[in-house]
Amino acid sequence: MGEVSIRLDDLPLRDDLRGLTPYGAPQAPLPVALNVNENTHPVPQEVADDILDAVALALRDVNRYPDREFTELREGFADYLGYGVTREQIWAANGSNEVLQHVLQAFGGPGRTAFGFAPTYSMYPLLTRATGATWVAGSRAADFSVDAESAAFQVAEAGADVVFLCAPNNPTGTPMTLEVIEAVYDASRGIVVVDEAYQEFAPRDAGSALALLPGRERLVVSRTMSKAFAFAGARVGYMAADPALVDALRLVRLPYHLSSLTQAAATAALRHASTMLQMVDEIVAQRDRIGATVEAIGYEPYDSWANFVLFGGVEDSAETWQALYDRGVLVRDVGIPHHLRVTAGTEQETTAFLDALASIDSGS
Amino acid sequence: MGEVSIRLDDLPLRDDLRGLTPYGAPQAPLPVALNVNENTHPVPQEVADDILDAVALALRDVNRYPDREFTELREGFADYLGYGVTREQIWAANGSNEVLQHVLQAFGGPGRTAFGFAPTYSMYPLLTRATGATWVAGSRAADFSVDAESAAFQVAEAGADVVFLCAPNNPTGTPMTLEVIEAVYDASRGIVVVDEAYQEFAPRDAGSALALLPGRERLVVSRTMSKAFAFAGARVGYMAADPALVDALRLVRLPYHLSSLTQAAATAALRHASTMLQMVDEIVAQRDRIGATVEAIGYEPYDSWANFVLFGGVEDSAETWQALYDRGVLVRDVGIPHHLRVTAGTEQETTAFLDALASIDSGS
Repeated sequence: MGEVSIRLDDLPLRDDLRGLTPYGAPQAPLPVALNVNENTHPVPQEVADDILDAVALALRDVNRYPDREFTELREGFADYLGYGVTREQIWAANGSNEVLQHVLQAFGGPGRTAFGFAPTYSMYPLLTRATGATWVAGSRAADFSVDAESAAFQVAEAGADVVFLCAPNNPTGTPMTLEVIEAVYDASRGIVVVDEAYQEFAPRDAGSALALLPGRERLVVSRTMSKAFAFAGARVGYMAADPALVDALRLVRLPYHLSSLTQAAATAALRHASTMLQMVDEIVAQRDRIGATVEAIGYEPYDSWANFVLFGGVEDSAETWQALYDRGVLVRDVGIPHHLRVTAGTEQETTAFLDALASIDSGS
Repeated sequence: MGEVSIRLDDLPLRDDLRGLTPYGAPQAPLPVALNVNENTHPVPQEVADDILDAVALALRDVNRYPDREFTELREGFADYLGYGVTREQIWAANGSNEVLQHVLQAFGGPGRTAFGFAPTYSMYPLLTRATGATWVAGSRAADFSVDAESAAFQVAEAGADVVFLCAPNNPTGTPMTLEVIEAVYDASRGIVVVDEAYQEFAPRDAGSALALLPGRERLVVSRTMSKAFAFAGARVGYMAADPALVDALRLVRLPYHLSSLTQAAATAALRHASTMLQMVDEIVAQRDRIGATVEAIGYEPYDSWANFVLFGGVEDSAETWQALYDRGVLVRDVGIPHHLRVTAGTEQETTAFLDALASIDSGS
């Protein structure tokens, strides 16, 4: 058309959206991108080949609407999760953000509140407000941990309809014990979502909140294929909960929200779970190397059970972020003053980050 | 787990969702499924092969988040649509339902209203209410048409924030002229969405509302790849509007809402638009055959510019629906008494439907 466009403010936009800017980390084409906690290892070729065969099969019927109940995929998730979880307890969507959106659409909304211990995953408040609910932020100790007593007290106080527990927590990497989760559940009257997006990077003997599901009908344990499964591009999040809670999500999902290609690709990837997860140990090793090395350089890393490390002691976060950027390394300024977050990449990428950081003289 | 599940009503569900049942047409495995207006012709093999190559390429980077701006796909839609539409005017999502949901999230919501001429696409009121807005139904003439004068009067009266014009209309097939769309736009103060899901099945010389976009910054023209493109399984809807209006949708979309596999598959399919659309003429021929034949049998078909036909004169819709079902043919009871809707299938499927209908003695 080529004519002068009007401005957004000239349109009858909802009042609560005026002045906002779209959410999203900068997507910059740098050689070493360690800013959005991706798994920087590509999917192994043998798995990619099998996924492609599954997609080829799905394409034969792509003129038809997909299975609205994504039955085979739910079966795959139940098998993968273990803990006696059954297909009826599984829900999935286009990324765990959409899973959380479904939960909020069913149990949040206007006049309701959602709660989380800040700092935590920045999408929680955005998703909460987008469904018309109010976000209430709780607090953490100085090392970003939360103990059972404080957690239960804050949650009871807040009386929220939906409680988000990011375990381990993003952007801090902080572990959360099952004891804390139990205490929060008992102290709350609403839905308790344990977001285990990074669970696969925790120590093998660390329990999953999946163990707490029996008898807790308000409990949701959400996961994603984006991180451990190296599947961020495919947009597949999922969760386990009581079948009745899953039924509630069927009331708010768009019909056919999961494409047949997504269903086929994810189902095939799950068949290769052990191969897909083979890079987890390597990533954990790089994460621990980051922790040890940034500490040696003079920064203050936090304990992380995820695939990233938050470190403090940065004199000027924006300045160090830019200095790393100028050296070809993209990390994340998560908005905590004097802190930066970096994803554990391949050994080579991690070395590039550590060398770049060491070459900057800004440790406080 | 295996224990007795609680009931949905025991959970702290939002009050406005209590007692609802999930939306969705029955998915029954009948030999002749003509109930959800799919394109019953599979994607041609040469196109499927090219799509598969594109997906294979996307799988190499599937560990990374997708292009949040789906730039190449927007380019593809702009090229396909013509009418001078540029990439900046394009938005897309997982099915046109999600496109419409984005529009309602940005311009609808609590305290606002959305309007459409009933009977129309049954998802409009559901999507409207899901975002907290109120649905207002206007009316059509006895033949389901709407003239410019009546349309403008009703729209001015309603004063809605979002107006949906389904053109051609689902479930009736009724065409809508550009004159009516212009009159509605002038009479409204809100966003006017022209839903052209079935546009490709209209006569070649019938204009698209895309021609009306220049200078109308509140106008949205939505499309889907589900119908003419035989791509229902891939979940790809899109729209064109003023770039400022598209910016508003960036405020409400989930980040990375379109997977890299979806982007790759849709972009590849668009490169083969003429092949993908080659079945449109065949479907239109079957649609017209349905109209002529059901009339000859004694039913009352309506003029359709879509890939389906609504016909009246059915003594008992439920009974005829069941009789067709028993003969292996699935059609849709859209809730208009004495009417049924049937999708135009392949020549063979259409014959199966017509033979089955002729064998039932229930024309009024």
